[in-house]
Amino acid sequence: MSEKIYRTIISIDCMGGDLGEQEVLKGIIEAYKKNNSLFFIIHGSGTKLPKLLIKQKILLGAFKYIEADSIVSMSDKPSQALRKGRNTTMWNALTCVSNGEAEVAISCGNTGALMAMSMMKLKKLNGINRPAIAVLWPSTNIRGFNILLDAGADIKADAQDLCQYALMGVSYAKSGFNIANPRVGILNIGTEVHKGSSELLKAADIIDNLSSIFGFKFIGYVEGDDIPSSKIDVIVTDGFTGNIALKTGEGTAKLVRTLFKETFNNSLMAKIASLIAFKNLKNLRKRIDPRRVNGGVFLGLNGTIVKSHGAADAIGISAAITLASKLSKNNFQKNLENKIFQINNLKKF
Amino acid sequence: MSEKIYRTIISIDCMGGDLGEQEVLKGIIEAYKKNNSLFFIIHGSGTKLPKLLIKQKILLGAFKYIEADSIVSMSDKPSQALRKGRNTTMWNALTCVSNGEAEVAISCGNTGALMAMSMMKLKKLNGINRPAIAVLWPSTNIRGFNILLDAGADIKADAQDLCQYALMGVSYAKSGFNIANPRVGILNIGTEVHKGSSELLKAADIIDNLSSIFGFKFIGYVEGDDIPSSKIDVIVTDGFTGNIALKTGEGTAKLVRTLFKETFNNSLMAKIASLIAFKNLKNLRKRIDPRRVNGGVFLGLNGTIVKSHGAADAIGISAAITLASKLSKNNFQKNLENKIFQINNLKKF
Repeated sequence: MSEKIYRTIISIDCMGGDLGEQEVLKGIIEAYKKNNSLFFIIHGSGTKLPKLLIKQKILLGAFKYIEADSIVSMSDKPSQALRKGRNTTMWNALTCVSNGEAEVAISCGNTGALMAMSMMKLKKLNGINRPAIAVLWPSTNIRGFNILLDAGADIKADAQDLCQYALMGVSYAKSGFNIANPRVGILNIGTEVHKGSSELLKAADIIDNLSSIFGFKFIGYVEGDDIPSSKIDVIVTDGFTGNIALKTGEGTAKLVRTLFKETFNNSLMAKIASLIAFKNLKNLRKRIDPRRVNGGVFLGLNGTIVKSHGAADAIGISAAITLASKLSKNNFQKNLENKIFQINNLKKF
Repeated sequence: MSEKIYRTIISIDCMGGDLGEQEVLKGIIEAYKKNNSLFFIIHGSGTKLPKLLIKQKILLGAFKYIEADSIVSMSDKPSQALRKGRNTTMWNALTCVSNGEAEVAISCGNTGALMAMSMMKLKKLNGINRPAIAVLWPSTNIRGFNILLDAGADIKADAQDLCQYALMGVSYAKSGFNIANPRVGILNIGTEVHKGSSELLKAADIIDNLSSIFGFKFIGYVEGDDIPSSKIDVIVTDGFTGNIALKTGEGTAKLVRTLFKETFNNSLMAKIASLIAFKNLKNLRKRIDPRRVNGGVFLGLNGTIVKSHGAADAIGISAAITLASKLSKNNFQKNLENKIFQINNLKKF
């Protein structure tokens, strides 16, 4: 057997991130240093990236470069991105997954465009009604984050969709983060069993029944303030609610940053204190921003797509690559397909 | 004319708050010192409050005390509270509004129980489908907060309900906080006009048409991260989404508090810094907790009910009383009734 068989092949769109392709490249090198069984299909546009790549001796033999005519920008609407379509680095990155060349694709470009293109290129997994975006949410859990889905792939979800989200979240927690027996809850406006819409009641019933079959613990309903807590690992909700919650968390974190600055600027003593604790405060600011825990994942498609945050730096990109390679190594996609096949064959579903 | 005619009469349930009736009494005295045209109908249970009241010479002639057999506790479910019903301080406080003795009632007890009892005692305003809870949300606006409704009175809202929420929010912003031309937005998962459910699209259309008639500015869709921003005054959403957003904000604030403690405990320098900036940090912690901006208001009933936070201290209670008296003085309830009457008679609605 040749060496290549053991390699995890990652297709990575280097364009569209806030910090430019050079930062994505730094992240690739960072990740490769930690794990030299990785092979990258690098997608770029323009002359800058090829010039930088030539200089990276460490990556020799560990990548292939594919040039595209244009890129999807942060301001492109999904419809515009689809029109640009096949001439973009994003499209090419997804093509490598759809044609089986790579096991997973990564992009730090525009989320809406990436979801629309992924749906078109990879299609929904057989049996899945609605794909979902799973995000990592800062929490007091030992890992430092929880998993929430759907964070906005779709605006609706019925009971069956919510059950599929639960199973996708469980697969992700197991393959991505080695959580053996994930605790799963449904986001609701109260923890009493009679609360919420009839779809939530139905979903709770089915998910409870599935828990012993698929090896997770159903903890029932949770509320918004439980999302960052240590009592749960996977939070299930529809994409409208999940997106509002995520953005509200981001907004609260942003408000805190603004008030932080005011607090440490409004007296001399406070200014001195902030200088003393500068590094600690900087770390704190990073931790409370939900976007900083990098790597949202698109679930329920024929292929795994990792969406890195647009503002991700090299460390963030490297974390997203490590997550992607872990999902690939643990046969995440295959396991997920099996689970979906299995529940679609269960009579009670 | 006798002096009493000019008095604002406030019915206040002193029981059920986390800090006890003595803290509520402190809040009453605080508010009375600022405005001695207030008259209080004080509702208590047990011997403690009457004993404390006798000692308060400053309140002589400014209150009436009404005794109840029992109280609604924080752990009582709405159904349990309704069963206890007429023997509780909460019930009595609402009775004073329903029989016209007081213009507004205040309670820092259990929200669910208070809403259920208010619905039973005061009934919905003629023409209102769903009453709403309006909360004050910490923001970078000049006032330090924005108004969000519905925060959880109901789990659903159709286009017509959302329009009524918009008008109720506008009335509240004008009467409660003197915002002449409030900026109103609908919470959604994107700001593009085509985004969101058909109910949101319909609501946006109607609210836009109402803006010139009722003197507000419709700014369209806003996202979760706009809730604490300075670009908006009134955020309109259904009670499910509003409650999830509110609790998520609370959870984020709680996470920040936890991480704060860790940050300032993990090095000697950071500990020193936290001692230097102790007061500033304490103030910051208070500001980022959405619950600390005191005074949620129940809108759309035959009478105004101010829900003070369960953990409110004397300053919080005093703020809630000041808000209640302001609403009363500005004829908030009457103005709101007129607005609802007016839109129900508009052809296009």
